Amino acid sequence: MSQESTQQRISAWAVTGIGEIVSGDQLGDVIVEACRNAPNGPLQDGDVLVVTQKIVSKAEGRMVEIDPDDPLSHKVLVEQEGVRVVRRRGDLIITQTQHGFICANSGIDLSNVERGWAALLPIDSDRSARRIRDIIRAKLGVSVGIIVSDTFGRPWRKGLTDVAIGVAGVAAVLDLRGTPDALGRMMQVTEVCIADEVACAAELVMGKSNGVPVAVVRGLDSAWMRESSMSEIVRPPQEDLFR
Amino acid sequence: MSQESTQQRISAWAVTGIGEIVSGDQLGDVIVEACRNAPNGPLQDGDVLVVTQKIVSKAEGRMVEIDPDDPLSHKVLVEQEGVRVVRRRGDLIITQTQHGFICANSGIDLSNVERGWAALLPIDSDRSARRIRDIIRAKLGVSVGIIVSDTFGRPWRKGLTDVAIGVAGVAAVLDLRGTPDALGRMMQVTEVCIADEVACAAELVMGKSNGVPVAVVRGLDSAWMRESSMSEIVRPPQEDLFR
Repeated sequence: MSQESTQQRISAWAVTGIGEIVSGDQLGDVIVEACRNAPNGPLQDGDVLVVTQKIVSKAEGRMVEIDPDDPLSHKVLVEQEGVRVVRRRGDLIITQTQHGFICANSGIDLSNVERGWAALLPIDSDRSARRIRDIIRAKLGVSVGIIVSDTFGRPWRKGLTDVAIGVAGVAAVLDLRGTPDALGRMMQVTEVCIADEVACAAELVMGKSNGVPVAVVRGLDSAWMRESSMSEIVRPPQEDLFR
Repeated sequence: MSQESTQQRISAWAVTGIGEIVSGDQLGDVIVEACRNAPNGPLQDGDVLVVTQKIVSKAEGRMVEIDPDDPLSHKVLVEQEGVRVVRRRGDLIITQTQHGFICANSGIDLSNVERGWAALLPIDSDRSARRIRDIIRAKLGVSVGIIVSDTFGRPWRKGLTDVAIGVAGVAAVLDLRGTPDALGRMMQVTEVCIADEVACAAELVMGKSNGVPVAVVRGLDSAWMRESSMSEIVRPPQEDLFR
């Protein structure tokens, strides 16, 4: 076997040609169509598709009309969608959502959304991810993983990064407890959130401004392809030091 | 131009063949040597190399002897290396380091380190990154970006992800303020921490247990290749809601 074939290599690219998504669109069908004749070839078993929250929310009718002339008109939605305000400073509100996510504005945002509308988070992004995965499997006969991604800020570090808010068919967190490190000692770092890392890799090719809402990540370890859910990622309040 | 050539695609792979690093090793030289005859071809302008903190600390002599029979013997180092304890619960200590990072154990850890030793964070990982970048430029004539990465936990989400702790030659945070979104509206999401996202992409090919300490990420937007520093990422305390 050549050195090349034994070396893990991942690739990521944006899926272009996805038009504006509206309520009722079946994203699995849309993605299958966009991937037909894609320059990187057909989808393969083990590919992970990262799908931005914005088009999931649009397809699932999670759009709410707001006053386009009031820059704060979505703030009432923020309080409705949050189960708890974690921090507030001026117009910035950090809330905990019903999913257990802690993020700005209950995950509601207005970019890449028509003026006068706000996008709420999907009700259950794991379910959204499974639905897309199942359609792709049914139509193309390939088993892919799906990550629904969103862009969150974080304490202590400037700049936002993409994170997973829904997963299907790919591990969310990899448990390395009991795995020896390169020197044969048991690992101190034990759990890696690969779903968030894959979301980050995908963001690098989707960009924020060009509006490409789907990317493919190919070449991930096949052992990571398994059933999963966001419960692997959301830390229970009693284990958290920063609520 | 074909569709392929206009489509942004990134790839990431681990740089194999790097042996155990010891104090005094010049990492730039080590990486140049390892990349010679690499299966993915020579380094190119615009490649970003992600180098794990562990080998930077080893090369720079940031190793400290500890009592191998006392599982808590590195805790005194944690307090020495931290400028402030942010949270403490049982043996878990979250500190702020002199760099402004907030992380567990002041960034000190014991995995992939010989028994009886602990690795402290580099004193100035931006400087470490610049040194590696400069050697590669001098020896190979290519301009690469360097990210020194470490593995941090975060509030609210389980599992660790890799982050940048030092940068050279590649943007840390991309400022998209004033950039129109796909619908022509000004962006709400304005700053993206691409250095952390690149560190995450690299972690997916380095893994935690196989001890490969360097990865190459190829295909990033050439506009991102510029001078930078961790000051783009470290959020000033007065702007932070979670100190």
